[in-house]
Amino acid sequence: MPVRALWFDHGALFIIDQRRLPARTVVRRMTRLTEAAEAIRTLAVRGAPAIGVAAAYGMVLGHHEGRYSPGRAARLLRATRPTAVDLSVGSEVVRRAWASGGDVEAAADAYRREIVEECHRIGLAGAPLFAHAPRVLTHCNAGALATVEWGTALAPLRVARERGARIFVWVDETRPLLQGSRLTAWELARERIPHAVIADNAAGHYLSTGQVDAVIVGADRIARNGDFANKIGTYEKAVVAKENGIPFYVAAPWSTFDGGRRTGRSIPVEERSEEEVLSFAGTRVSPERSHARNPAFDVTPFRFVTAFVTPSGVVRPTALERALERRLAGRS
Amino acid sequence: MPVRALWFDHGALFIIDQRRLPARTVVRRMTRLTEAAEAIRTLAVRGAPAIGVAAAYGMVLGHHEGRYSPGRAARLLRATRPTAVDLSVGSEVVRRAWASGGDVEAAADAYRREIVEECHRIGLAGAPLFAHAPRVLTHCNAGALATVEWGTALAPLRVARERGARIFVWVDETRPLLQGSRLTAWELARERIPHAVIADNAAGHYLSTGQVDAVIVGADRIARNGDFANKIGTYEKAVVAKENGIPFYVAAPWSTFDGGRRTGRSIPVEERSEEEVLSFAGTRVSPERSHARNPAFDVTPFRFVTAFVTPSGVVRPTALERALERRLAGRS
Repeated sequence: MPVRALWFDHGALFIIDQRRLPARTVVRRMTRLTEAAEAIRTLAVRGAPAIGVAAAYGMVLGHHEGRYSPGRAARLLRATRPTAVDLSVGSEVVRRAWASGGDVEAAADAYRREIVEECHRIGLAGAPLFAHAPRVLTHCNAGALATVEWGTALAPLRVARERGARIFVWVDETRPLLQGSRLTAWELARERIPHAVIADNAAGHYLSTGQVDAVIVGADRIARNGDFANKIGTYEKAVVAKENGIPFYVAAPWSTFDGGRRTGRSIPVEERSEEEVLSFAGTRVSPERSHARNPAFDVTPFRFVTAFVTPSGVVRPTALERALERRLAGRS
Repeated sequence: MPVRALWFDHGALFIIDQRRLPARTVVRRMTRLTEAAEAIRTLAVRGAPAIGVAAAYGMVLGHHEGRYSPGRAARLLRATRPTAVDLSVGSEVVRRAWASGGDVEAAADAYRREIVEECHRIGLAGAPLFAHAPRVLTHCNAGALATVEWGTALAPLRVARERGARIFVWVDETRPLLQGSRLTAWELARERIPHAVIADNAAGHYLSTGQVDAVIVGADRIARNGDFANKIGTYEKAVVAKENGIPFYVAAPWSTFDGGRRTGRSIPVEERSEEEVLSFAGTRVSPERSHARNPAFDVTPFRFVTAFVTPSGVVRPTALERALERRLAGRS
């Protein structure tokens, strides 16, 4: 059975609590907007496309509760995390249906289906890139857990494998929250896709010694010029990939492209609690007197991106602006 | 009181067990060569210069035990870890005294004093580099714990601070074994030097946003052309520093320069147990079915090094070969 990060049934939102994976698969049931907002804020559900869908259903819960205006409900959900643009997109879709007296649940369902369908098309569009480049490095989790189904970065690898490519995935563990070693490894192990977890520090070693054919990651927000925000550490991998002449791909549904933002300079970078760095699994790692800084994302300039893998095909950064214009003009 | 990683007293070697820091300061007393070898192998003592000195005293213990030949004793100690050349240098110094009937403890003491003195000179030589570049990133622990006293990378920062520079240290946590967040942070906290621990992934963010003035690291082995091995992740930081025009320094005593090795290509890279990556502080992180790879070091080409900070001064990579020749010829 394919992984599904969340679903909506009989007026309730169900999510797999990703903080508990891989040790336990805990499904949480929610009936209130604030529960959905809290699940997004605490990373019980994470990944830009997935939190967009969670926010869409959070709006549905808010509508049922009857104590929010559509604008206030959308603001509450949007405020949970600043970097991923999908969060705004997902809540906005339902806000419009709500404000115009439409069917909010149908609007959220349609948004979810669109995201899942786009991820599948990302897989179909990107798979040929890996047919002869099977040893692939990825960072964080841009799999089904991050996108409801299929994944963004993992979708092309899944499709390439179905088509017979001998995919092997280098999984950056992705400190501080270990989305790679916990979530990406969990998805790959479940589907028996060969992989090896590595400390984030080891990516450069494998990139520089001819053991990686390509890098693919997801994104949380992509500016018009192709600069993009993604999980902290993405920038380092992109710089080192370019230094070694290794293609670096960014896979994302259209909801992640922020057409209103010209470059990546103004993308807000969320800074999370220093405890995520100073402690692990309840054990303090650093001295009591030490402090930490914990930016959750970094911004990678477009010049490090070989291509974007979109639902409409593989797009070079230099062609991105035109592709976005075409799409906005409804010709894509 | 300054930190001292190890000392020798009345026929016994004492080391601070670095695996227990920062939570506890446990001193271990050893009287047998195999205990010293095990302490090096298991990283109870680590850091290239420090394990060189530990090996020198391990030879002294082996000599007292009376059941090893000098050659066998040196081989046993050398075999514990392949990458740091200091291990060979430290055991060889005592092997020669032993083989020629000299005073082995005096030879080990002299070697320790030389390393400590060289580290102090590294501090004096390197301090001016940071007088007007006070925000410094470092990787792993190249402090007193790694070198007996003073440190290599940390020595210039200590001296610069004594001279009034407002040093602030960005401490890479250094997965998988967290020598940064555990050991470097411990040394800095003890001396109240302002610092912030960061996930290794965050270094690129700070390097690319104007928040780091310089990078300094230690080394485990430096080839004649300036290629050098150091803790896994060093290569990524060097590439990203260069990309952003930030000086990247490597500090080491002469024992770390491997005059017999022309380039870094042939430096042996130790691969350690996958458990160090799959688990964190004793807790399994990854799915049971997942595997990991765990190279402990990477090799950074000389072109990413701005300068080496040596006991004899600051040396550009292009001038390194001549400096080594001069030194071998006894003219330095």
